[in-house]
Amino acid sequence: MKDASSDWFDSCVSHLTSEGSLRVWSVLVTIFGDLAQNKSDQISGSLITALTSLVGIKAEATRVALHRLRKEGWIESTRVGRASVHRLTEYGRNQSAAAAPRIYARETSKPEIWHVLVSSNSETSRKELADQLLTGEYVSVNPVTAMASGPMPDDLEELLGFETSAISVPEWLRELFGPEPLKTAYDDFWKSVRIIDELLPQTGVDDPMKTAVLRILVVHNWRRIILRHPVLPAYFLPADWKGPACREEVSRLLDRLPRPHLATLEAELNT
Amino acid sequence: MKDASSDWFDSCVSHLTSEGSLRVWSVLVTIFGDLAQNKSDQISGSLITALTSLVGIKAEATRVALHRLRKEGWIESTRVGRASVHRLTEYGRNQSAAAAPRIYARETSKPEIWHVLVSSNSETSRKELADQLLTGEYVSVNPVTAMASGPMPDDLEELLGFETSAISVPEWLRELFGPEPLKTAYDDFWKSVRIIDELLPQTGVDDPMKTAVLRILVVHNWRRIILRHPVLPAYFLPADWKGPACREEVSRLLDRLPRPHLATLEAELNT
Repeated sequence: MKDASSDWFDSCVSHLTSEGSLRVWSVLVTIFGDLAQNKSDQISGSLITALTSLVGIKAEATRVALHRLRKEGWIESTRVGRASVHRLTEYGRNQSAAAAPRIYARETSKPEIWHVLVSSNSETSRKELADQLLTGEYVSVNPVTAMASGPMPDDLEELLGFETSAISVPEWLRELFGPEPLKTAYDDFWKSVRIIDELLPQTGVDDPMKTAVLRILVVHNWRRIILRHPVLPAYFLPADWKGPACREEVSRLLDRLPRPHLATLEAELNT
Repeated sequence: MKDASSDWFDSCVSHLTSEGSLRVWSVLVTIFGDLAQNKSDQISGSLITALTSLVGIKAEATRVALHRLRKEGWIESTRVGRASVHRLTEYGRNQSAAAAPRIYARETSKPEIWHVLVSSNSETSRKELADQLLTGEYVSVNPVTAMASGPMPDDLEELLGFETSAISVPEWLRELFGPEPLKTAYDDFWKSVRIIDELLPQTGVDDPMKTAVLRILVVHNWRRIILRHPVLPAYFLPADWKGPACREEVSRLLDRLPRPHLATLEAELNT
């Protein structure tokens, strides 16, 4: 039977998981990325199961996901009797570190330099553009044009490249870069983080497990939205774009839900 | 009957008019642009007829062309008894002045700033791009992309614009911007100016009428090629592009054929 003080927590979890079933392996990536980024960090199987069960994920699903991440080289595990501990591999740590600035930055980045790549209609040229798009850093302007922040690659072969710091953005580009489904995702996320902000106890969350779970869910939902598209400053997006407001609110929430030490969490399991 | 000393002149004229019939009004534009650019300059009908007849244009064709240029606002004419004098209008002078730097510059210009315009598929956006292309300053990269030297226009509406000073140029762009027919036109012009350079008397041309006619033909042929396309520096063009070599040779020839004073030419008519 739940005590009444837990109602706000269940509401928060329910708002942060309302978008349907979570991909468990992806939640685990968030957990490791948020709580165990350092080389020496490791998380016990019991702690992982405790955290995931708090968001409604079954122990069996967690086990399968751990297995998958291990197979893909994200994590490595050590058995100690019937218990086990898990940590990010070097590959997993690098992936986490690469995404961290985009996830945790307090301000939407405003790159000063951009570059634009234009392919011809030849197969090799189109292939070269497609390969660049696969990196996930580019936004597609039209079938033969893509752009990304930062300086132009210096190994372009069959692509026309421009480096630019002065861009005139028409309305159609804002609509192209900020399409309705993505806009709605931000709007929905905005609503749920506002609700979480309301629901969190004014006096602070004094339960490290609950703090960890809410952090993880906030970071997880946020990560899933922002990693759907490359870095795009406000001037490339529709006027009522909620991205920067969401980022501010995420920072605010993470301040209210400071990252617990792993040792504290592990200790909680035995209480 | 021609004297032998005239053979080199006829050969020059024949080489410089070998590409078929000259558009007479266009030759007149060259004449006014080369010999009568100043506000106070005027050319008698007799001098124009004398110059054009030296390149094989009939008096009647010259009269028709003068009429056309007058109607289009390029020149204005004053009758003095049976004689008449012609001068560029302000419009004609402005047009000539606008083209002059491209025609007479000793070095191919190398703009440091370029801008690129990209349209969407919407009709208004495509129309805006088409309007820009009509100015003649843009080169088309593909159906939705055009570029030109200089800063980006500040009144873009439905076009995406980039200003750039760092461009990576693939081979296909060089072939697109320097297509075979244009390349051949430069190659042919290169051959003929080389021949003119050989044919001109080492001691200099001492006949001001012949000097004027050859200048005009060189400038005319050159103008017809370079005004076919916007300014394009060497790095946008195929490796064996003859443009810069042609420009050097044109400068050399014009040095050898210094512009005669109009008064000198008018005086020649009465000798």
